[in-house]
Amino acid sequence: MKSKLFTPGPTKVPGAVLNAVGKQVLHHRSPEFSEKVRHVQDELGRLLSTHNDTLLFTCSGTGMMEAAVANLLSRGDKAMCLVNGVFGQRWADICTAYGVEAVCHSIEWGKSVDPSDLDRALDRHPDAKVVFATHSETSTGALNDVKALGAIAGKHDVVMAVDATSSVGVHELRMDEWGIDVIIAGTQKALMTPPGLAFVALNGRAWSLVSDSDLPTFYFDFTKTWKRLQKKGQTPFTTAVSLVYGLEVALAMMEEEGWENVYARHAAMGAATRAAVSALGFRVLPEHPADGLTVAVCPEGIDGNKIVRVVDDEFGVRFAGGQEKLSGRVFRIGHMGGIRERDLAMAVSALERALVSMGHDIEIGKGLTALEEVLLKRTVAA
Amino acid sequence: MKSKLFTPGPTKVPGAVLNAVGKQVLHHRSPEFSEKVRHVQDELGRLLSTHNDTLLFTCSGTGMMEAAVANLLSRGDKAMCLVNGVFGQRWADICTAYGVEAVCHSIEWGKSVDPSDLDRALDRHPDAKVVFATHSETSTGALNDVKALGAIAGKHDVVMAVDATSSVGVHELRMDEWGIDVIIAGTQKALMTPPGLAFVALNGRAWSLVSDSDLPTFYFDFTKTWKRLQKKGQTPFTTAVSLVYGLEVALAMMEEEGWENVYARHAAMGAATRAAVSALGFRVLPEHPADGLTVAVCPEGIDGNKIVRVVDDEFGVRFAGGQEKLSGRVFRIGHMGGIRERDLAMAVSALERALVSMGHDIEIGKGLTALEEVLLKRTVAA
Repeated sequence: MKSKLFTPGPTKVPGAVLNAVGKQVLHHRSPEFSEKVRHVQDELGRLLSTHNDTLLFTCSGTGMMEAAVANLLSRGDKAMCLVNGVFGQRWADICTAYGVEAVCHSIEWGKSVDPSDLDRALDRHPDAKVVFATHSETSTGALNDVKALGAIAGKHDVVMAVDATSSVGVHELRMDEWGIDVIIAGTQKALMTPPGLAFVALNGRAWSLVSDSDLPTFYFDFTKTWKRLQKKGQTPFTTAVSLVYGLEVALAMMEEEGWENVYARHAAMGAATRAAVSALGFRVLPEHPADGLTVAVCPEGIDGNKIVRVVDDEFGVRFAGGQEKLSGRVFRIGHMGGIRERDLAMAVSALERALVSMGHDIEIGKGLTALEEVLLKRTVAA
Repeated sequence: MKSKLFTPGPTKVPGAVLNAVGKQVLHHRSPEFSEKVRHVQDELGRLLSTHNDTLLFTCSGTGMMEAAVANLLSRGDKAMCLVNGVFGQRWADICTAYGVEAVCHSIEWGKSVDPSDLDRALDRHPDAKVVFATHSETSTGALNDVKALGAIAGKHDVVMAVDATSSVGVHELRMDEWGIDVIIAGTQKALMTPPGLAFVALNGRAWSLVSDSDLPTFYFDFTKTWKRLQKKGQTPFTTAVSLVYGLEVALAMMEEEGWENVYARHAAMGAATRAAVSALGFRVLPEHPADGLTVAVCPEGIDGNKIVRVVDDEFGVRFAGGQEKLSGRVFRIGHMGGIRERDLAMAVSALERALVSMGHDIEIGKGLTALEEVLLKRTVAA
């Protein structure tokens, strides 16, 4: 039996999206495919509430992060990286790989970045050209207030680039209104598409950095990509046609559900799952949790990786373990994209059964009860 | 009606591959998926007749070319680029983007590189660290003799990297025996997988360049990718899981057909299609043609792009036009991967009908007859 995915990406993909992905390929230079590309790019713009063009690339979220660094900066430039987990750190690592000086504002993993700290950090580093931030830090489940951070970056006239890979489609993002200059994301999480596609949106302020950049880039060249899109609705290099089909269907499903409803569903799933793991004695790691995943801290004597293993091997449900220094100390339950409220009982029940199977003394049904109480509030309210 | 693809990539994907691509995603960190990754990588090694590890990346063939440049070289290094079309030129453009000095051995598009010319060029540039070559130049249909070129590079103790995107699965490649140090390819052509995956294989001599390289690379970092593969059978970043499923099935289909038979089928399809277009009055562009595509030169007064348009719009068959300076002057018929001998009549018939529809005075059935004569030789011989 294939385990059911409750991972924070890739996530379970809806059948309608899989059907689209499995269709015969269109040629990437055909007018029919250009139409799909333009359609998807328009939809992504609506999703980000932006008038900026979105550019599609065939790569993972990390590839897209690298693309942002390589297109925006020059050798020897300084960038401010907000680090509260693996993905914040990755911004810094990529900068370093490219000879960009990464000034890290690093805080405890699980905390969210305080905008006033960014304000002070930018006072100390007025020469930073870009602030790299993470909206939902997938390694800790912490949500950063990119609206407030964007306002600070704007005050200092610094470009802000946000990795929204595990937040887009979970939390509202208003790129233009919030003054976010660059958003990058992969589409394998809440956007319900099999992994392999990512996108970026840039505003005029970011484009002016692009034209100054001297870092090497070819496959990820934003200017070339934008020109080809404008002219022909194409990507410069062969794109993952099948995944574009899938993304088109996934975005249509979200549009049909209504984006407000999509966000409300994720809020309910986040609150309910957090209530469930709390009821079972786990602390939720982030102070300000994102709603796409729940990161639960294991009490002394419980190995998070073992929970992941037992839940998978014995109960057919797949969570994710902790990354890097959180390995063994936490487990992560993804509840975004194709996951619905009704699916959560499966995850929480598997967790309870795994805990019993591992010999822990828990009150059976306590997590499920807490889950249901939160979910009922929404139903009754609706 | 969707046009039937006779394009030189992406190519028509077999139903069994599409079924695999449309399956629910496995988590990229699950043991089941690692098994698939290792299996695919072993198969690719067998396909290239190499003991070297192959590394998978989520990108187009161009992404993989960039990865080779960025991993093998350092700023200010000199590389020899063999240019007889768009893709040879692309090696040079990528080198330039990375601050690598590209010394181009450029010849007429459609010709193949003479190994003795490479010998002389390397005599003149003994400091070139890498020779970048193209096996089947998809823009012109020319096949370069990479076995002979590899021997010359070996004599000069220079690393040779080959782009085999439109040759792998069409023409035999014996990496170890021929002394080719690096092979890169996308899997959307003869490997019958929807676009989005590419791979590289490197030998020890190439790895020693990798350890000296100072060019920036993160997403495409070969060392990190190799380590993760060795340790866990994983890719460092989320890979296009669905396309790996597809590639696994496609490789199994080729293994079942027998690689010798796959090569013989392509040889027959190449010979037959060349005979057909020749019979219709088109010159075949390359002197030494690759068997995965036929590039036909249009006589004065016939616009290659118009043929492509009419064949597509009126007859439901999609060829490709010429690229860059060949635009309008040629059209390209792809016959690789999922294309079988029986499919070719459809392509040639559509071409004949398009020519008639465009008002050209051709002898109806002449191309088809020539096609059939060549195909029959193989059947009768078998």
